[in-house]
Amino acid sequence: MPARKPLNIGLVGYGFMSRAHSNAFLQAPRFFETEYQPALKAVCARNAERVKSFAQNWGYESVETDWRALVNRADIDLIDIASPNDTHAEIGIAAAQAGKMVLCEKPLGRNATESASMVSAVESERVANMVWYNYRRVPAVMLLKLLLDEGRFGRIFHYRAKFLQDWTISQELPQGGEGLWRLDADVAGSGVTGDLLAHCIDTALWLNGPLREVTAMTETFIKERKHNLTGRVEPVRIDDASAALGRFHNSALATFEATRYARGHKALYTLEINGGHASAMWDLHDLHRIQFFDHRDEGRLRGWRSIHVTDGDHPYMKRWWVPGLQIGYEHTFIHQFADFLTALSEGKEAAPTFRNALATDHVTDAILKSAKTGRWEPVSSVP
Amino acid sequence: MPARKPLNIGLVGYGFMSRAHSNAFLQAPRFFETEYQPALKAVCARNAERVKSFAQNWGYESVETDWRALVNRADIDLIDIASPNDTHAEIGIAAAQAGKMVLCEKPLGRNATESASMVSAVESERVANMVWYNYRRVPAVMLLKLLLDEGRFGRIFHYRAKFLQDWTISQELPQGGEGLWRLDADVAGSGVTGDLLAHCIDTALWLNGPLREVTAMTETFIKERKHNLTGRVEPVRIDDASAALGRFHNSALATFEATRYARGHKALYTLEINGGHASAMWDLHDLHRIQFFDHRDEGRLRGWRSIHVTDGDHPYMKRWWVPGLQIGYEHTFIHQFADFLTALSEGKEAAPTFRNALATDHVTDAILKSAKTGRWEPVSSVP
Amino acid sequence: MPARKPLNIGLVGYGFMSRAHSNAFLQAPRFFETEYQPALKAVCARNAERVKSFAQNWGYESVETDWRALVNRADIDLIDIASPNDTHAEIGIAAAQAGKMVLCEKPLGRNATESASMVSAVESERVANMVWYNYRRVPAVMLLKLLLDEGRFGRIFHYRAKFLQDWTISQELPQGGEGLWRLDADVAGSGVTGDLLAHCIDTALWLNGPLREVTAMTETFIKERKHNLTGRVEPVRIDDASAALGRFHNSALATFEATRYARGHKALYTLEINGGHASAMWDLHDLHRIQFFDHRDEGRLRGWRSIHVTDGDHPYMKRWWVPGLQIGYEHTFIHQFADFLTALSEGKEAAPTFRNALATDHVTDAILKSAKTGRWEPVSSVP
Amino acid sequence: MPARKPLNIGLVGYGFMSRAHSNAFLQAPRFFETEYQPALKAVCARNAERVKSFAQNWGYESVETDWRALVNRADIDLIDIASPNDTHAEIGIAAAQAGKMVLCEKPLGRNATESASMVSAVESERVANMVWYNYRRVPAVMLLKLLLDEGRFGRIFHYRAKFLQDWTISQELPQGGEGLWRLDADVAGSGVTGDLLAHCIDTALWLNGPLREVTAMTETFIKERKHNLTGRVEPVRIDDASAALGRFHNSALATFEATRYARGHKALYTLEINGGHASAMWDLHDLHRIQFFDHRDEGRLRGWRSIHVTDGDHPYMKRWWVPGLQIGYEHTFIHQFADFLTALSEGKEAAPTFRNALATDHVTDAILKSAKTGRWEPVSSVP
Repeated sequence: MPARKPLNIGLVGYGFMSRAHSNAFLQAPRFFETEYQPALKAVCARNAERVKSFAQNWGYESVETDWRALVNRADIDLIDIASPNDTHAEIGIAAAQAGKMVLCEKPLGRNATESASMVSAVESERVANMVWYNYRRVPAVMLLKLLLDEGRFGRIFHYRAKFLQDWTISQELPQGGEGLWRLDADVAGSGVTGDLLAHCIDTALWLNGPLREVTAMTETFIKERKHNLTGRVEPVRIDDASAALGRFHNSALATFEATRYARGHKALYTLEINGGHASAMWDLHDLHRIQFFDHRDEGRLRGWRSIHVTDGDHPYMKRWWVPGLQIGYEHTFIHQFADFLTALSEGKEAAPTFRNALATDHVTDAILKSAKTGRWEPVSSVP
Repeated sequence: MPARKPLNIGLVGYGFMSRAHSNAFLQAPRFFETEYQPALKAVCARNAERVKSFAQNWGYESVETDWRALVNRADIDLIDIASPNDTHAEIGIAAAQAGKMVLCEKPLGRNATESASMVSAVESERVANMVWYNYRRVPAVMLLKLLLDEGRFGRIFHYRAKFLQDWTISQELPQGGEGLWRLDADVAGSGVTGDLLAHCIDTALWLNGPLREVTAMTETFIKERKHNLTGRVEPVRIDDASAALGRFHNSALATFEATRYARGHKALYTLEINGGHASAMWDLHDLHRIQFFDHRDEGRLRGWRSIHVTDGDHPYMKRWWVPGLQIGYEHTFIHQFADFLTALSEGKEAAPTFRNALATDHVTDAILKSAKTGRWEPVSSVP
Repeated sequence: MPARKPLNIGLVGYGFMSRAHSNAFLQAPRFFETEYQPALKAVCARNAERVKSFAQNWGYESVETDWRALVNRADIDLIDIASPNDTHAEIGIAAAQAGKMVLCEKPLGRNATESASMVSAVESERVANMVWYNYRRVPAVMLLKLLLDEGRFGRIFHYRAKFLQDWTISQELPQGGEGLWRLDADVAGSGVTGDLLAHCIDTALWLNGPLREVTAMTETFIKERKHNLTGRVEPVRIDDASAALGRFHNSALATFEATRYARGHKALYTLEINGGHASAMWDLHDLHRIQFFDHRDEGRLRGWRSIHVTDGDHPYMKRWWVPGLQIGYEHTFIHQFADFLTALSEGKEAAPTFRNALATDHVTDAILKSAKTGRWEPVSSVP
Repeated sequence: MPARKPLNIGLVGYGFMSRAHSNAFLQAPRFFETEYQPALKAVCARNAERVKSFAQNWGYESVETDWRALVNRADIDLIDIASPNDTHAEIGIAAAQAGKMVLCEKPLGRNATESASMVSAVESERVANMVWYNYRRVPAVMLLKLLLDEGRFGRIFHYRAKFLQDWTISQELPQGGEGLWRLDADVAGSGVTGDLLAHCIDTALWLNGPLREVTAMTETFIKERKHNLTGRVEPVRIDDASAALGRFHNSALATFEATRYARGHKALYTLEINGGHASAMWDLHDLHRIQFFDHRDEGRLRGWRSIHVTDGDHPYMKRWWVPGLQIGYEHTFIHQFADFLTALSEGKEAAPTFRNALATDHVTDAILKSAKTGRWEPVSSVP
């Protein structure tokens, strides 16, 4: 094993996603053969005490409290943005302009306009860029991609996905501030459409190609909540639930749904594809499995196969343990970062790029627009 | 056990549904305590040879080849219509006018206009009437109804249902004629919307109350098929797939979908309800189970309960075997007919009446209309 | 359809199994093409009032209160024994000696000695005979039999089965008398070994051939219960739980278990077969499914197939509804009786014959003996 | 967060388990609050090139090729043994005598005699010790332990466990040497009994207390295999399959089974407990779930709860992500090592100690003995 080249990382944020990304930086080179060795140079956040504690736990060499300082440090190769959505565009554009590679937690911007400005920045500066739509790197989901690309499913008739949670049902839950900024429309951009449905859309576009048009509805079940930053009861301006019908360019029909009001579902991201020859389903609650039905199996013995995607010939899995031993959520980030490092070595782009993520934002924007107009809305295309 | 009163039945049709109904007539009094004893007086269909064979197998005393003759027989109390959809209105109205009780296979008419004329007939003639939306009588579904009526779920946020099949995917399948009239728009009225989605709508209205408005899309994937009656390749005018978003009067959101192009699903009617306190799911492929989640369970031990609905304290089940021994599809018809007999004895209506079924037709009509207009369409109310 | 020949039936018993058998007599000719038409001539039990009520409900033409009278009636072709285990041998032998065909609910006798005398009687009198081990006629189980006979599994390494219930856990439950004779060793012969494990053994011998030897343990968790017939608290002499290891003649290993103390299981009869090429599982709680794994599937896509055994090319199923619509418990009796009628027409034996059932009794006897001796016990062979 | 105390680790082995342990050393302090910071001082194996590569990948500071050198290094606090079974006793005893803490991969020795000598060594030297029976630290399994300790299950009637694999079915697979020493009786001690069944036994003893006696059978399906070290076809002396019946001191019945000949199962470790009030099941293939049945639930709504053990109030889980996001196999080692560090800080033992593991060996020894004698064998007790 030759010595690895250092890749100096500066992280913005210290929340949930900062942990997931940092873990990926540390674990990827232990389980995958990478040319680069990530070096955790600095982590940045406004709260000096908490960012120091985070740095100590994860082994970051230094801390910053001003993201502009981080972005301008000469010893940093890559800026990773894991702070709330309203900071993505400004930091991302500045980082690109400083010549840094830029990784960004999803959604890219709060809307397609913000995202488009970020795409312009990274593309005009020609810096490597990637958005953390991590569910593409679930081995089971990657297996579906391979099967689709091999034409195993035949003509696709239906694609349906939903992402159901139940954590905001209580009227007592406030909005805004740390841990709850996802309920604050100014910070988050939207509610479940940008947070949850965006995952469904990203995977759908990747697996089944672009969407042509959508019609949708959104709902805010709890109309007012106390705001943590103002201390006042204020209208809730995010969408609590979102559902859409759509048509793909390949003529398949789409049904999408996301909500935080589905009691009993913690993070139920499920997707299903129905083709002329075969169908498949996947579910985040048991992410190491797919259900696969192949009509070309012998008639009497056709059934939905529950495939435990942990074998050596399954995507990513020969790097882990032995068949039958499952992996978990954080592995998706490890896989995505390992793929980023490989792409970097090969001079290729690592998907989803900012441009790929913009396509998702065009869909979520069309969904939010349709929910207001009550009409079918076309989805802007991303070349 | 006192002697039972005879109830003289005349059946129209000898297909799949005629078997299911006949079985119900024979089995209901063996497993349920009923005041009436159904007498299978006559079965009617145009093909004399086949209707004789049917009569012999099921024990009908006589046959008719003209439904008008059947309807006018003085020795018949009840006309049961199990012939194709385009015959429902004419026979049903004539039967009502002849003073007969009328049972009708679903959907009631080919559209709400036909159905409304049938409602008028049975109501002006004051004859007992019922539509065979049999899935209400699945013990698991009836249990859901009881739980909802007890307020176990709290405020309802979401109701979703789909009915997925895969039997028409082949381009080689012709349309029209015996066994395939469901693909002929003139006979069937519509495709999956009236055939499959109607089941979803009937259950939804019963469980969660009326719908206010819908937006929808439909698709015909295979545009032309040989027609069995003409021998020519003709345009297919039914909908192969149908999906809708909707809003209930109680403010819950609805998502509905039906298709015959979901490879791997034979008759996957699934429904899910999400309320503030609890959620539940049911699936026709394992109709003797529900999945139930109660948020008021102790936190660490909350989970989806897989309830095998076969105990003596479950609806209908003390009439069958012992706990753990499942029932099947045809039992839903037996239960529905047993309930009809009970209602008859008690001088009550047996749901769903023709009027109840008209409400479903208003929804399916609005869905089909929205699929053409691209707009949200209001659902006409049925008082 | 030509006129059917009458087959005159006399039934002994009016309990749970009498209902299941009577239903089979009535339903078999409606759903299967049979040369014979069962005629329900008489039902016999000591309680005159209850037997009359039973006769009225099921359409038996007459009643008897003495089984000897029934057995000697000239207008009866077939005696069906559905009374408690301690009556099987005496009635069965008398019926055979009267030249009647004999059907008998399982287990055949209370032990192999009783059963052997019954085998002698039916074989010396050359009367048709069959034991109601109904689970062989579950379509899913029959499909397993077909696959095994085709050699799909390769060499069999393991066969495991268990039958778990939980209905006798309460100390308050009495033993003996109507509905509870299964807890009375004098009547039942044994506890779960003859009641539940016998089902597992019958299926195992049929699917995988004879057993060579077993070692076993039994347990009576609740040592004393009030006896309904004496009114006194008496020792419980049946086995509450039974487990065995065994070796088949084909060198496969066996593990068997039955209990009435497995909380949460109502009638969980599960079996699993592991062969060199394939494995399969079945579970009575969802009897219309099997799980099937075929190692010869493409590596990446190997998985347990959940097969909904309701298609037209599945055993028995083209006689019922359409794919996706499940059947239930009582259908197994209908299938078995239809097979009996077919065998009768063809002059063949219908399995399991009394002789086949004796083989099961030799296994259960060896298990009960081993539980006492603590040693491996050989299983007596039945040619 | 105060600075952590270093804990200097020396690892023996570079195989599968060495990766799992090393990952635990690195991850535990990032996700758990620990007083100690593991320092990866040295890794030891005979193959210098491969051990260097391993050290580089995992960040070990140095390498050794002689375990005696490692054990005697003054800069090492803890020896972790992850080499094949035949090395455990010698290294473990030497490490203890050198005053090191000793962690050892399971099984402890190749038999109870070896294990007893290891227990003597660590106890006479009073060094901290632990065996990596990692499945105790699956959050779902730990939840079962908590529920059992709370008395939730009532009297325990049944405990059943099995561990099924299918990786040695091919006759072509050789025995012995790297990656295949588990088929070599001299190295492994036994086959599936020590490898797989030992996991079942360890969990069983922990959850349900000691076993009193067992009866068992073992089988070697493939009698001869080429030996990788000699190049000759040699008899296979390990057990390919093992099954046992047993009785616990608390009067519960036990059934255990392990095999490498169950086609379709990669690592199916399942366990089930049936108590008077409740039952539970767990399955390694979906290790983040348990199935739980509580008879005290309302009658109509009793069912097996599928509990996704990923909430903050589930064992270990508040250290990971958010509810609904599952963990995987390697987390069990992280948890176990974190618990070891906590115990070290608190001056307590971390279970399972060598003494605890010896109890498991007494059971597996009794099983192997019974398989030879054909008799029930008592299980030696460990005070």
